[in-house]
Amino acid sequence: MRRFQEMSRVERNSEIKRQSERYQKYMNMDLRLNMTRGKPGEDQLELSMPMLDVLDSRSDCRDSFGVDCRNYGELPGSMDARKLFGDFLGISAEETIVVGSSSLTFMYDCITRAMLTGVLGSREPWAKAGKIKFVCPVPGYDRHFTICEFLGIGMIPVELSTTGPDMETVRRLVKEDEAVKGIWCVPKYTNPYGGCYNDETVRALASMETKAEDFRIFWDNAYGMHYIYKDVPVLNILDECKKAGNPNRAYLFGSTSKITFPGAGVGFFGASAENIAFTKNQIAAQSISWDKMNMLRHVRFLKDLDGIRRMMDRQAALLRPKFDRVLSVLDQELHGCGAGEWVRPDGGYFITYIGNSGCAKRIHALCKQAGVQLTEPGATHPYHRDPEDRFLRIAPSYPPVEELQIAMEVFCTAAKIASLEALGI
Amino acid sequence: MRRFQEMSRVERNSEIKRQSERYQKYMNMDLRLNMTRGKPGEDQLELSMPMLDVLDSRSDCRDSFGVDCRNYGELPGSMDARKLFGDFLGISAEETIVVGSSSLTFMYDCITRAMLTGVLGSREPWAKAGKIKFVCPVPGYDRHFTICEFLGIGMIPVELSTTGPDMETVRRLVKEDEAVKGIWCVPKYTNPYGGCYNDETVRALASMETKAEDFRIFWDNAYGMHYIYKDVPVLNILDECKKAGNPNRAYLFGSTSKITFPGAGVGFFGASAENIAFTKNQIAAQSISWDKMNMLRHVRFLKDLDGIRRMMDRQAALLRPKFDRVLSVLDQELHGCGAGEWVRPDGGYFITYIGNSGCAKRIHALCKQAGVQLTEPGATHPYHRDPEDRFLRIAPSYPPVEELQIAMEVFCTAAKIASLEALGI
Repeated sequence: MRRFQEMSRVERNSEIKRQSERYQKYMNMDLRLNMTRGKPGEDQLELSMPMLDVLDSRSDCRDSFGVDCRNYGELPGSMDARKLFGDFLGISAEETIVVGSSSLTFMYDCITRAMLTGVLGSREPWAKAGKIKFVCPVPGYDRHFTICEFLGIGMIPVELSTTGPDMETVRRLVKEDEAVKGIWCVPKYTNPYGGCYNDETVRALASMETKAEDFRIFWDNAYGMHYIYKDVPVLNILDECKKAGNPNRAYLFGSTSKITFPGAGVGFFGASAENIAFTKNQIAAQSISWDKMNMLRHVRFLKDLDGIRRMMDRQAALLRPKFDRVLSVLDQELHGCGAGEWVRPDGGYFITYIGNSGCAKRIHALCKQAGVQLTEPGATHPYHRDPEDRFLRIAPSYPPVEELQIAMEVFCTAAKIASLEALGI
Repeated sequence: MRRFQEMSRVERNSEIKRQSERYQKYMNMDLRLNMTRGKPGEDQLELSMPMLDVLDSRSDCRDSFGVDCRNYGELPGSMDARKLFGDFLGISAEETIVVGSSSLTFMYDCITRAMLTGVLGSREPWAKAGKIKFVCPVPGYDRHFTICEFLGIGMIPVELSTTGPDMETVRRLVKEDEAVKGIWCVPKYTNPYGGCYNDETVRALASMETKAEDFRIFWDNAYGMHYIYKDVPVLNILDECKKAGNPNRAYLFGSTSKITFPGAGVGFFGASAENIAFTKNQIAAQSISWDKMNMLRHVRFLKDLDGIRRMMDRQAALLRPKFDRVLSVLDQELHGCGAGEWVRPDGGYFITYIGNSGCAKRIHALCKQAGVQLTEPGATHPYHRDPEDRFLRIAPSYPPVEELQIAMEVFCTAAKIASLEALGI
């Protein structure tokens, strides 16, 4: 197909008519398709059903250190779980705390504790340091931004490429402004962009000069082993921070939400030994201990890093046809027609579509009208402000392939209509 | 035995010699006994082992509303669980949110949210309202006080009797001072006092005039069905608050930590519909959803309020001999000798010993030296300050009966020595 931009007005009008007729056909189908959230599909959940058999009424519920997982105790988590998920994060068990069922909740916890009492090295609680700010690579994860917005933390958007955030801007921001206390990073298969931070980016984050002495990198390694096409190595941020003489700069997060059961798995936190000691002391105010039975269940089911890898191979095998389908419809429908671009991810849960200026909201509205729910436009940006109205997040994991096919046909039709409209009729 | 206070100096000296010889005997036994925390015993944990059989790899993991508990969703919890634990709290499912494995964590969460953004009706976040304060009935639960201390919330101790806090003082404090934003209450089998709030107390709390418009009662109903000798009815605080025209005053908390597995059960929160709507909106920043698989496990295992009652009957049957033993040793050893008093609870997890002035620390130290660990003195009071050094918390639940016998013999010997010493030698 020729680029819309190169068409004459007459050709564009005839194309818009063709696409509108097609759109009307979808309208008449009374579709109810949902691609809003990065939820694993039911086939993925089935993979973890055997985990429900590892503990039954005859089980010995002690971990390998003899701790009875049925009772209170072990605030930083069962040592077996700390070892396993430390391995996931590429750090030691002693640098790892295993918590409740959500890493997002623990990110929120880390920030509320920082706000009310400070982190290791803070001169005062963050809430008393004036209006503090976080650097937010965009497009990014809406729930990171929601935490900041809820707590009144300012957000500074910085452009993200497929190799990481624009480090020149990040470096300047953190060096100049003491109020900049943190940065959100999804280093691997970024949500929703799909890229991976390259070595240069990781080293720059670890070594950059920060005006705030208590600056923290919130390293949300949500997709650490969530390859679909290719396992892309990303440097270990904690190692790099240590090498750069900033061992306490990085907070690492991960969870089994997309390894076993979303929201019913375990979350974990990694940091320097000094940060862990400080954090253990702080979390004693909020918890006696987290759910060690679920830790035990996960350890006995997943066993070790190889066990996690075997599970992730099976997850990838289920996700791949879905990503294939979305990408192939995008290719077939939109390639070369000038109606936006998209990022081909190696893993993770999302495909980012980058429309022409001013098209994202219109595409979203057209899809919605035709019964195809997409994540709301703006969700990829702080305060829901996508300045050029370009980004949309496509979540292929939950719907079956047949639904994805039709949903993406609707999407592409909408993208064409919106792009043509934007060129003027 | 005659009261020490009525003995002559010579008689007291001979008694102290007798008790010291006895103490030396215990010292020689090289004991290692721990009565520090309110942990259920292993026999109690066994009662919940069949819960591990209710979900296995062949189970349908949808709740009765068709929600797949293995995936994200239902921020306020599975509706089945909201119904069951709403029943536990004596309120509706719509007034109940079921959360992670700890009600203590959710209390902490409620307070950090209040500090950083305020509760329904707040003019400003609590952290911006100057030094705010909580009323703390004493003796009370150390972990409530730890939350306040960690967050820099001032604590005002108010005397607790077996029928509730001294309401004349509470009424005055909350009426006079806008900085008083909350009160900690363990209404039933109070931790560690063992008493239950009477109707007058509950009604007074619900109806009292508070200077702060955003005052909250933190109603920690940790032992709502944890009778041992007698199920004492306590008025429903939410009902009373509604009747008094203060529907948003009460925050109710409970958990299954002492019904099924401590720290591996579910916690829950109850409040007015208006508070729940406000809270749901707030917690969207910290959670996608809590562990619905564990909710499902609990609902299928416990079934309904009668199911919980049957479980609590069995728990009580295991705890009763332990409480019997502690109380009988106290009776046999200390009755009438003027070496302190104790409260005979109808349920809960603790027995409070109230020594003569200046004796608690000495008793604790003597016990420790002889290998018997007790909760540290002062734990029952804000800032660990028991002004007259009198209170000690005895936790009979975890050790087996034979250990309790010897631990309590040591305790009583120590109590006698400390009391005699305090009278002067």
